Amino acid sequence: MLLHLSTWPEVETYLQHSQGIILPIGSTEQHGPTGLIGTDAICAEAISRGVGQATQAMVAPTINVGMALHHTAFPGTISLRPSTLILVVRDYITCLAKAGFTKFYFINGHGGNIATLKAAFSEIYAHLEDLQIPNASKVQCQVANWFMCGSVYKLAQELYSDQEGSHATPSEVAVTQYFYPEAIKKAYLCPEVVSGHKIYGAVDFRLRYHDGRMGSNPALATPEHGKQFYDLAVEELSKRYLEFVKEEESK
Amino acid sequence: MLLHLSTWPEVETYLQHSQGIILPIGSTEQHGPTGLIGTDAICAEAISRGVGQATQAMVAPTINVGMALHHTAFPGTISLRPSTLILVVRDYITCLAKAGFTKFYFINGHGGNIATLKAAFSEIYAHLEDLQIPNASKVQCQVANWFMCGSVYKLAQELYSDQEGSHATPSEVAVTQYFYPEAIKKAYLCPEVVSGHKIYGAVDFRLRYHDGRMGSNPALATPEHGKQFYDLAVEELSKRYLEFVKEEESK
Amino acid sequence: MLLHLSTWPEVETYLQHSQGIILPIGSTEQHGPTGLIGTDAICAEAISRGVGQATQAMVAPTINVGMALHHTAFPGTISLRPSTLILVVRDYITCLAKAGFTKFYFINGHGGNIATLKAAFSEIYAHLEDLQIPNASKVQCQVANWFMCGSVYKLAQELYSDQEGSHATPSEVAVTQYFYPEAIKKAYLCPEVVSGHKIYGAVDFRLRYHDGRMGSNPALATPEHGKQFYDLAVEELSKRYLEFVKEEESK
Amino acid sequence: MLLHLSTWPEVETYLQHSQGIILPIGSTEQHGPTGLIGTDAICAEAISRGVGQATQAMVAPTINVGMALHHTAFPGTISLRPSTLILVVRDYITCLAKAGFTKFYFINGHGGNIATLKAAFSEIYAHLEDLQIPNASKVQCQVANWFMCGSVYKLAQELYSDQEGSHATPSEVAVTQYFYPEAIKKAYLCPEVVSGHKIYGAVDFRLRYHDGRMGSNPALATPEHGKQFYDLAVEELSKRYLEFVKEEESK
Amino acid sequence: MLLHLSTWPEVETYLQHSQGIILPIGSTEQHGPTGLIGTDAICAEAISRGVGQATQAMVAPTINVGMALHHTAFPGTISLRPSTLILVVRDYITCLAKAGFTKFYFINGHGGNIATLKAAFSEIYAHLEDLQIPNASKVQCQVANWFMCGSVYKLAQELYSDQEGSHATPSEVAVTQYFYPEAIKKAYLCPEVVSGHKIYGAVDFRLRYHDGRMGSNPALATPEHGKQFYDLAVEELSKRYLEFVKEEESK
Amino acid sequence: MLLHLSTWPEVETYLQHSQGIILPIGSTEQHGPTGLIGTDAICAEAISRGVGQATQAMVAPTINVGMALHHTAFPGTISLRPSTLILVVRDYITCLAKAGFTKFYFINGHGGNIATLKAAFSEIYAHLEDLQIPNASKVQCQVANWFMCGSVYKLAQELYSDQEGSHATPSEVAVTQYFYPEAIKKAYLCPEVVSGHKIYGAVDFRLRYHDGRMGSNPALATPEHGKQFYDLAVEELSKRYLEFVKEEESK
Repeated sequence: MLLHLSTWPEVETYLQHSQGIILPIGSTEQHGPTGLIGTDAICAEAISRGVGQATQAMVAPTINVGMALHHTAFPGTISLRPSTLILVVRDYITCLAKAGFTKFYFINGHGGNIATLKAAFSEIYAHLEDLQIPNASKVQCQVANWFMCGSVYKLAQELYSDQEGSHATPSEVAVTQYFYPEAIKKAYLCPEVVSGHKIYGAVDFRLRYHDGRMGSNPALATPEHGKQFYDLAVEELSKRYLEFVKEEESK
Repeated sequence: MLLHLSTWPEVETYLQHSQGIILPIGSTEQHGPTGLIGTDAICAEAISRGVGQATQAMVAPTINVGMALHHTAFPGTISLRPSTLILVVRDYITCLAKAGFTKFYFINGHGGNIATLKAAFSEIYAHLEDLQIPNASKVQCQVANWFMCGSVYKLAQELYSDQEGSHATPSEVAVTQYFYPEAIKKAYLCPEVVSGHKIYGAVDFRLRYHDGRMGSNPALATPEHGKQFYDLAVEELSKRYLEFVKEEESK
Repeated sequence: MLLHLSTWPEVETYLQHSQGIILPIGSTEQHGPTGLIGTDAICAEAISRGVGQATQAMVAPTINVGMALHHTAFPGTISLRPSTLILVVRDYITCLAKAGFTKFYFINGHGGNIATLKAAFSEIYAHLEDLQIPNASKVQCQVANWFMCGSVYKLAQELYSDQEGSHATPSEVAVTQYFYPEAIKKAYLCPEVVSGHKIYGAVDFRLRYHDGRMGSNPALATPEHGKQFYDLAVEELSKRYLEFVKEEESK
Repeated sequence: MLLHLSTWPEVETYLQHSQGIILPIGSTEQHGPTGLIGTDAICAEAISRGVGQATQAMVAPTINVGMALHHTAFPGTISLRPSTLILVVRDYITCLAKAGFTKFYFINGHGGNIATLKAAFSEIYAHLEDLQIPNASKVQCQVANWFMCGSVYKLAQELYSDQEGSHATPSEVAVTQYFYPEAIKKAYLCPEVVSGHKIYGAVDFRLRYHDGRMGSNPALATPEHGKQFYDLAVEELSKRYLEFVKEEESK
Repeated sequence: MLLHLSTWPEVETYLQHSQGIILPIGSTEQHGPTGLIGTDAICAEAISRGVGQATQAMVAPTINVGMALHHTAFPGTISLRPSTLILVVRDYITCLAKAGFTKFYFINGHGGNIATLKAAFSEIYAHLEDLQIPNASKVQCQVANWFMCGSVYKLAQELYSDQEGSHATPSEVAVTQYFYPEAIKKAYLCPEVVSGHKIYGAVDFRLRYHDGRMGSNPALATPEHGKQFYDLAVEELSKRYLEFVKEEESK
Repeated sequence: MLLHLSTWPEVETYLQHSQGIILPIGSTEQHGPTGLIGTDAICAEAISRGVGQATQAMVAPTINVGMALHHTAFPGTISLRPSTLILVVRDYITCLAKAGFTKFYFINGHGGNIATLKAAFSEIYAHLEDLQIPNASKVQCQVANWFMCGSVYKLAQELYSDQEGSHATPSEVAVTQYFYPEAIKKAYLCPEVVSGHKIYGAVDFRLRYHDGRMGSNPALATPEHGKQFYDLAVEELSKRYLEFVKEEESK
């Protein structure tokens, strides 16, 4: 059930039997010479909708732009600063919590979002208690990274071994290929891809990772792989979402 | 050309011949008993993509959540506060301007965004000059409201006359029906719809506008109307976008 | 009744029969070679006091500095950033609303303030509801631009036709001449005045509008015209203020 | 020379021989049963203009609303929060420093502004250096409290002794009577006026200081006293302003 | 009783008989060629602990970094901006006030903190009332500057006369020598030390005060002096702390 | 080498051969019935100083208060909000980076700080590049959690097995016992300690974890264990710090 394709009376009805909502969050950032700039948002959105269908859960509109400051030396990248993203997530959850939602499940497509999301959750719990909204103390937020699902990780190792890398990976590229076969890009990929450096600022990142990839060979990706990854992620996250909404409240 | 379906080298190439980008901005807010919560984002996104195709312009990912605080007493509405939205737009434009974009064309689906967007533009021009980024003084932002296009307005008057209203209008509902025929909703619409009150806070809004509509009769909408509105908006805004990017810089 | 010339017990008494207050807001910005930097504040203050006298309304002290970032490349201009102005207006209204005021009528002398004021109003309604102050949902803010009054506009057209322009206009200069005849300035005004460009950043603005005027010929202004404009604006805005405070609350 | 009654070319000319500017800052706050809510702004503005005339200095528009949170339990008080006032002062000085001003002399009418102004100055020096504006390291700000002038203090002791008190004092009331004789207020003043409590929050303040006065007997004020105070303050601050603008820069 | 060496049940017990807490606040800033960068924090912490022992008061962990922007042109200085320090103090007091503390006694080792602390207190009183926490109106904050104690000042005059100066003073250096005899530094101190300039920005400060001292001769300090200053400060501030916690609340 | 016990010329000298600095960060939060509120700060400070001695590195003053919002329902806890902590860390690093430091090694004693620190690092890299300070792109920040050192973890498993738990653990309590044997606390510890719940808001946390412990049995701690943990952490983190400062810069 997509929030964007629902009416407010439908949301009112939904809230009578569930207070859970899935929030896809991605990023708008370079993904190497062949990866789509929207890769992280595309994956998060597709998998969120899959989980939503499987679990009858409400799915919020996708947060397309996340925390990708370290990629901003490559054109096309858009990033919120962490302090902005905290405010954005705070505004989202405050509105939804006032309406009655209490279980916020962020399905995330980008590692760079994790720290800021977790910081935001802490900020928000305190904010909601300060606002004294009913059920403030029942609000629970979780971030689920589809690319860190056990089943996804296992398949990526089987298919790509150490060519999976950690950015612009064949697994995420495969998922975008499955959903946007018309946007499969070809380009020369230098076989000696850099890996292993820590991530600091944007200028430093581009100096280290010349074409934007981090140890990955996205040429290995296929749309068929993408479907496999998608199916695994949807299955695993659906299970976890259902556990999350069933998780007992404190007393 | 969708930024989300592009690679960073494609963006680099694009920037060699154009510094313009279209940014769809909508809202996630109640649209009466039958209007979709995503109406404003759906319309802005669809029309932006149409304009992008017609003009070969780059289209950024949609800002799905805008300034809709006055709708937050209806469940399902998500709103940024104006101060948050200013930061969001500042972060978007700062990233893109550093990469070389200078012409920012926001295609907007929601009247409530206009004031904050204009305030944000002022904040941003000063911010970019403070950062001393090259071309700071060339950065230009415009907001184009598809629903205020002359041709759109004229058609809405012809088709719906005074039943067009000013929120959850048949014209915007029609556009969503054209793009999401599977999500056409039916519900009882009280024929005595309220109109004419000014907009203040959320509690007040809901007390005045009981079912969320403002003077509109969205039951008049059809997908065919939607196509007409879409075509008119794309044509008119394409012309205006091209004028905007051609607009001479100051010397 | 000027707030600055009242005592707190007088305010207490006033609040027993009216919850309305007029807030003059101007700007401190260049107004071409002959216009006073305080033009917008002077006009807003004078007209507000006139309306206050005509309607027995309380008039707050003038907000002398508004949103004029685009004029800051001319010396003498002072501007708040939009995000600062939002906080200023929030602080004003929060104090006054806690004391019992609910109807805030901003009489505005500067087009550049409008967007930020409207954004501020949205921010404030939500802020007051968050604070859970009594009557939060009754708070109503309006901005009334004296220079956009129908009667004022009509007279400006009659007197100056297309030489009215849109900044450093003869009509606003005339009002300042009426109130400060000792500060009527003379200077060479290039007859070929620029007009028609959109407003972007400060550097761009000065490059386009070399002497600060936008299509106007302020040499046409006279103190007598000023009195006429003043009288018209006071009359029209007094009527509108009274309608505003009488406007029914939602139930 | 009042900035509000000047044109931008006049400011440009002024800057060729002086980089100093006087900024009156007052407050909008209760001043007991008979003191005007605008007392602090009225005094600061009048004395600033006197100093401006005596020294040929530019005088900025008055900051009418300052930091008066502790008075907000009395109706009619408007206060900025310290964090807002810091931003306001930062915006003022940033605009003026970019135009070439470097010596900022705040003539202050309210003790409650001092701490925040000093905090703001520190914030601003660092901000201007961050912006790398020319002359950033030459910018100097001072706050001069007219009511703490040696000559003013001495006269207040002579005239009122321990009935001067520390808020709604006869000396400041006298200055407002001199400038606004039409607004001299009469009301019963309980002779047992409280004094000696420290200032904490607004609720606490009103509980301690029932009618708003702090140990003062404003009934002793006369317009003639007001003239004396005014003359003394103008003379003393004019001397100090001239010393300030002559103060050598670091090398 | 040190908060850091207590358990939460011990704090719970403490709150049953006292709502007071001492908060040491120092700075991390250059103190001339021989003064320790931590001088202000070391003094504040030591004296706070002394006062805590003498009065059985709870002592919070030391705020090691304060407002020292004007010293930042010397390496090793760390400063919060005033706006950051306001938030820090707000967060501290909000947590402690929610737990039941109402009397906050800041023992301060650095003149540069005073203005920002006072601004913070005003901000915080309003913040706590906005949060509607119980006892919000009973919260009282004071800043006590150990170096401004009458007894301390008198001894400094006796021992050092005009060589006490106003930064990197022998009195504060002596206190650090008493507590850290192993860190007594020797270096050439130019006998012609600058004094008398006002404090503006960091660049200006270093240009004026070449080695960081302001009119002081820290070579006069001895650990024995340090003990004397410490004893005097502890005695005087202990008395004042006890008066503060006994100070009657408003009714 | 402790920054607080150094002079600015000593820092200047230090910077000629190293640009690295260790920043201890802890927390001020409940640690169960027997754990000290300062546990995390005590551990981080002690281990940082050990690493500083072993590596000749500069050690900054301890950040005593971190992100512990989820513990604030227990008295004695003080927490910064994530958004405040980001500003604090930004101010620290900006000052130090301007002075020439480029390698920032946070030795952290509290899991709750990690997300916010990582978010802060991203914010700061972008901030420094915006400020255009020299070497901005060379600035590198890392957070090292002493309690997650391999050797520490292994020993905790050997000594305490599943009674180590995840908050108020015997390992961290042991370290505080080693450094503060005079502050070893005894109290009844319910043997059925809760574990396994996720962390959400403060009210929820206290409802779940009644006495503040999370699955731990701190009664197992001894000062001798503390020495062992300390030695292991210092050894492991010293090695990692040296690798960090030697890590090649991007080119």
